[in-house]
Amino acid sequence: MGTAAPTPTLRWTGDSIEIIDQTRLPAELALIDVRDVATAVDAIGRLAIRGAPALGAFGALALIVGLDEAQPGSMDDAVDVLERLRTEIGDARPTAVNLRWAVDRTIDAALGDGAAADVAAVRQRLLDEALAIADEDAQACAEIGRLGREVLAEATVIATHCNAGRLATAGDGTALAAVYAKASCGESVRVLAAESRPLLQGARLTAWELADAGIDVSVVSDGAMASLIVRGDVDAVIVGADRIAANGDTANKVGTLGHALAAAHAGIGFYIAAPTTTIDAAMPSGDRIVIEQRDADEVHHAGGARLTPTGVGAVNPAFDVTPARLITAIITDAGVLRPPYGESIADALAATRCAQPEDDRC
Amino acid sequence: MGTAAPTPTLRWTGDSIEIIDQTRLPAELALIDVRDVATAVDAIGRLAIRGAPALGAFGALALIVGLDEAQPGSMDDAVDVLERLRTEIGDARPTAVNLRWAVDRTIDAALGDGAAADVAAVRQRLLDEALAIADEDAQACAEIGRLGREVLAEATVIATHCNAGRLATAGDGTALAAVYAKASCGESVRVLAAESRPLLQGARLTAWELADAGIDVSVVSDGAMASLIVRGDVDAVIVGADRIAANGDTANKVGTLGHALAAAHAGIGFYIAAPTTTIDAAMPSGDRIVIEQRDADEVHHAGGARLTPTGVGAVNPAFDVTPARLITAIITDAGVLRPPYGESIADALAATRCAQPEDDRC
Repeated sequence: MGTAAPTPTLRWTGDSIEIIDQTRLPAELALIDVRDVATAVDAIGRLAIRGAPALGAFGALALIVGLDEAQPGSMDDAVDVLERLRTEIGDARPTAVNLRWAVDRTIDAALGDGAAADVAAVRQRLLDEALAIADEDAQACAEIGRLGREVLAEATVIATHCNAGRLATAGDGTALAAVYAKASCGESVRVLAAESRPLLQGARLTAWELADAGIDVSVVSDGAMASLIVRGDVDAVIVGADRIAANGDTANKVGTLGHALAAAHAGIGFYIAAPTTTIDAAMPSGDRIVIEQRDADEVHHAGGARLTPTGVGAVNPAFDVTPARLITAIITDAGVLRPPYGESIADALAATRCAQPEDDRC
Repeated sequence: MGTAAPTPTLRWTGDSIEIIDQTRLPAELALIDVRDVATAVDAIGRLAIRGAPALGAFGALALIVGLDEAQPGSMDDAVDVLERLRTEIGDARPTAVNLRWAVDRTIDAALGDGAAADVAAVRQRLLDEALAIADEDAQACAEIGRLGREVLAEATVIATHCNAGRLATAGDGTALAAVYAKASCGESVRVLAAESRPLLQGARLTAWELADAGIDVSVVSDGAMASLIVRGDVDAVIVGADRIAANGDTANKVGTLGHALAAAHAGIGFYIAAPTTTIDAAMPSGDRIVIEQRDADEVHHAGGARLTPTGVGAVNPAFDVTPARLITAIITDAGVLRPPYGESIADALAATRCAQPEDDRC
């Protein structure tokens, strides 16, 4: 099975950013042409674009859109504009650390050494850095995909959770990069996508992007995945990560832990796929990670309809923590990390990244 | 916390059956006055009434409705009518073994000994037997509630799945009977109801009936329950059962297994609550239980809205099997069964049921 040409999650057109409006998926593939900061901030806020790596690249590119919109007449004006955008774009989604990091990195690259001669030079430096961020993300995805394909060499039916794919990155994703790599090498692969209530990123986004790429995908209710795993209907589970602690404990979209428990019970591999930038070396273990509690309305509704009786409460943790001992390996752009994770994670962070030749992917 | 007077799931009015239309819950509490067989069969088919014990009592009462509707002029006519109803009502939902069992038992009680003198006597015998079936169910629920309350004496926050409550029985339910018993004895209790995708019986029905009874209930996405259990936010898990094998392996609504795995991981109690009629002594273990695969459309939709892209598949097992070793105890109307279940189940099936005094419930 091959993969069809994907629709880019975000693309620099020369004077604007074209993004897929993920709030319209899967009902329709609608593109947004982002030509002003208000549109960019709105797209971030209402999750038209989401996924930490994709948000970073988008935020960086939005700085050029913002500079073009403001048309500063001098270097001083340009500096003022970028300082305003640092907050306006960088804080558009407070919990997205990648967004703020990418915005800071891009502005610092343009202005940090004070060597840009004029506004045009500032714009070019911003653009070079933003495209570099997107390219680094795509390269990390490619390396995770290459390694993930090796790890999943014997797996045909692969379960995943939420969306850790093209729609979450500027490349082929993290968990789904391994799936795309298998497919592009002609290996048989079928994905079982947990729907990922309450926001249904699996049912809406993972199902859409895999089908868009011509890959066999079926959606499964979150609670049904354990039985499929335990019955032997799944060969391996691979998911992304929101944050990886220094001991390997991994926070990811709520529902991940249940799949990990089932995989351990069944004796199949449970894999995390994430760039090394997801590792929080300052976080010793997962029990220190604060779990974001999101609005109860997300649980009360699905597909726009109210599901529950009025007056009833809901508990809505945004993610859960899978303990390191349930994780078979962590697949990163710096290698496949195995237990004991305290050591392998420290080694990976210390190591220099090596470029992989393009023709050595399959 | 006390419990408010519940709205009966089904009630014999004297010449009709009044039921809650569960398809309208939780949006509105609508009652259906069932006065003819077509309405009864339609209510069963579209799940306006569901839950094995409730279906049994309803099917038995529907025989009287059917007899009244047909107005047979002779005993021969009455026998013909009941043989027609045996199929028409008894097979209205093929997988509901309780429905067929209750219809057969009621007709056999009315006609089996050939002693009914006239149609009026047949009608009275049908009614006596149907009300006995409902009463036995209510008594079994009460006993399960009494024992469940003892088992859950130290538990305040109780997690459950699907709906094993008043809406599924002619009494206080099975898993939820323990919750009602705690509440009626003045014990503090809070329920976390897993929403139970795809058909959302937890979000719709369990949330509704507990709120209707004045009991504190919050809805949780199925995938979020594991993290709440592992974080120590749940004291015990209690669920119903569709079928219990002779070794204690238990089939229940899909999603149950995940909660059991999380409970075992966290070291909290995981309890099955079910009448002994749920035990299938001829089924040696759970791996022999055939899992019903339901329509993919249930996964593709929620609250009437399409969630997934068109052209994508879905896998929709109706229930899963929790292995006996993950079950702390099975709470039945014949006692609390503990491992090894092969022995305790055989003993329970052999034992004579003892009536419990009404005033010894708390």
